[in-house]
Amino acid sequence: METLSTNRSHGGTQGVYRHQSSATRTAMTFSVFVPDHAPGARLPVVWYLSGLTCTHANVTEKGEFRAACVEHGVIFVAPDTSPRGAGVPDDAAYDFGQGAGFYVDATQEPWAAQFRMRTYVEEELPALLAARFPVDMDRQGITGHSMGGHGALTVALRQPGRFRSVSAFAPIVSPLACPWGEKALGGYLGADREAWRAYDACALIADGARLPDLLVDQGTADGFLEEQLRTQLLAAACEAAGQPATIRMQEGYDHSYYFISTFMPEHVAWHAARLRA
Amino acid sequence: METLSTNRSHGGTQGVYRHQSSATRTAMTFSVFVPDHAPGARLPVVWYLSGLTCTHANVTEKGEFRAACVEHGVIFVAPDTSPRGAGVPDDAAYDFGQGAGFYVDATQEPWAAQFRMRTYVEEELPALLAARFPVDMDRQGITGHSMGGHGALTVALRQPGRFRSVSAFAPIVSPLACPWGEKALGGYLGADREAWRAYDACALIADGARLPDLLVDQGTADGFLEEQLRTQLLAAACEAAGQPATIRMQEGYDHSYYFISTFMPEHVAWHAARLRA
Repeated sequence: METLSTNRSHGGTQGVYRHQSSATRTAMTFSVFVPDHAPGARLPVVWYLSGLTCTHANVTEKGEFRAACVEHGVIFVAPDTSPRGAGVPDDAAYDFGQGAGFYVDATQEPWAAQFRMRTYVEEELPALLAARFPVDMDRQGITGHSMGGHGALTVALRQPGRFRSVSAFAPIVSPLACPWGEKALGGYLGADREAWRAYDACALIADGARLPDLLVDQGTADGFLEEQLRTQLLAAACEAAGQPATIRMQEGYDHSYYFISTFMPEHVAWHAARLRA
Repeated sequence: METLSTNRSHGGTQGVYRHQSSATRTAMTFSVFVPDHAPGARLPVVWYLSGLTCTHANVTEKGEFRAACVEHGVIFVAPDTSPRGAGVPDDAAYDFGQGAGFYVDATQEPWAAQFRMRTYVEEELPALLAARFPVDMDRQGITGHSMGGHGALTVALRQPGRFRSVSAFAPIVSPLACPWGEKALGGYLGADREAWRAYDACALIADGARLPDLLVDQGTADGFLEEQLRTQLLAAACEAAGQPATIRMQEGYDHSYYFISTFMPEHVAWHAARLRA
C-alpha cells in the first residue's frame, strides 16, 4: 500500500492511498480519514460508496464529513467506483464501464475479469483496512450516494449482522426497475434477471433480507428521482416487509454534493449513535 | 447578470453568477451563498478572496462555510481571482497572469486594461451585490486565503471603517518581501516599490492604516510559510503599531482546503460576532 497524500484536517488525518487489488487486477485508490485518538485505540468505521462518475476524491473534497467524524470518533473510508486505466474495459457512456462498477462481481465479458467491485468492497478492502488502520471491524457502518447508495444497501442486506448502521443519500433503490440498473446489471450480469436480485435492495428485502435500521435522505428536486432512483419503491418494500426505515424527502434539494454535504453530519451522527451504542 | 446555477444547500441557496465587468472588460463569474431569511430581511455579508490558481469554485465546493453561514445568518461571496479568457493577457507561470490578479489595479502593459481586480472587488462587485442580493452593506466582513488573504488585508486596510471584521487564512502578509509578491507587483505595477505599499499589509500598517481587529490562522506545515507567507512579519508589524491581532499558528496544517475548511466555521463565527454586534 502506497500513501499518495496525507493532510491534517479538522483534528485528524485525511489520507489517500493506492494498492494493487487482486479483485480488480488494477491499482485502486481510496481515502481514509482518521480522527486523532488515544494510542492503541481502535475506532468504528463508516464506509462511503460513491456514485456514477465519482472517484474517492469527490466525497473526500466536498462531503463535509470530517468535523462530524472527529466529534464522534469515527473513521471514514471512501473507495473508488470501479477499476480504471488504459488496460481496463470501458464504455463511452457515463453510466457503464469505468466509474460505474455498480458494486457487482461481473460475470459477462469483457467485464468479468476486472469489474469485481463486490469482492473488492466486501472482502479485499476491508481486510486491508483492518490490517493497516486503527479500525474496530466489529463496529462498521455503511452509506453511499446514488449508485453508491445502492451499493451500501445491497452490501449490507447480503451480510446480516456485519453492519450495525446503514444509511444512504439518494440511492438507486431498485436496479431491476430503472434504466441505469437495467443497463448496468444486464451488461455486467447478463440477461437472467434472477441473477440481478442479489444486487437490488428492494428485491433483497422482498426475499427476506433485513437491515438493523435504515436512514435515507432524498431531495425532492433531484432530477433522477422519478426515473432512476424511485425512492417510493424502497418505502413500499420496507413497509411490506416490516423493515424499519426513516426515509426523508428533503424539499428543494438536488442530487449534488450540495445536498450530500448538507445532511452528512446527521448521517455520521446517526451511524455513530449505533456504532458506539 | 446571468445565473449559472443555484443549488439548495444547508438551508440556503448556493448560487453561481456571471456578469460583464466594466473593470476587467471580461465576463466575471462569482458565487453567493444566501441563507434562508425572512422576506425583506438584509443579511450581513462576508467576502472571501481566493488564492493563486483558484476561481470562485474552490471555496464554494471545498470551503465548508455554508453550515456556519446559516447558523449565523451571513451571506458569503466568492469572486474570481482575475479576468480570464482567450483575449486576456496571460503568463505561463501559475503565480502571474490569469488566476493571479493579486487584487491590484495594474499600471503596466499588457495588464493595465484588464487586470483591475482592486476596482472590481472594491467597487464594481459590491455595487452589483448591493443591487441584486439581500445584503446589508453596512455590515461587511472580509477574509481570504493566501493571495486572497493579502487581498482581504489590503482591501480592508485601505478603506477604514468599511469592514467591521477582517480575517485571513495563510495570507501573503508582505508582497514587498517575498518572491510571489515581488514578481506580481513588479509585473503589474512596475519597478517603483513605493507604488507597491498600497498593496502590502505590513507596509500599510507601518504607514498608519488600521483594522478594527484581525484573526489569522496559519498552518505550521504550510510549505509556503517560510519564503512566501512570512506570518511573523505581520505579527511584528501589528505589535509595532499596536494593531490588535489574533494570529494562530495551527500545528501540522498545510496550505490546502483541508486546512481552510477546518477553521472556516470559526472564522465565520468570528465575523458574525462583529457583524451582528
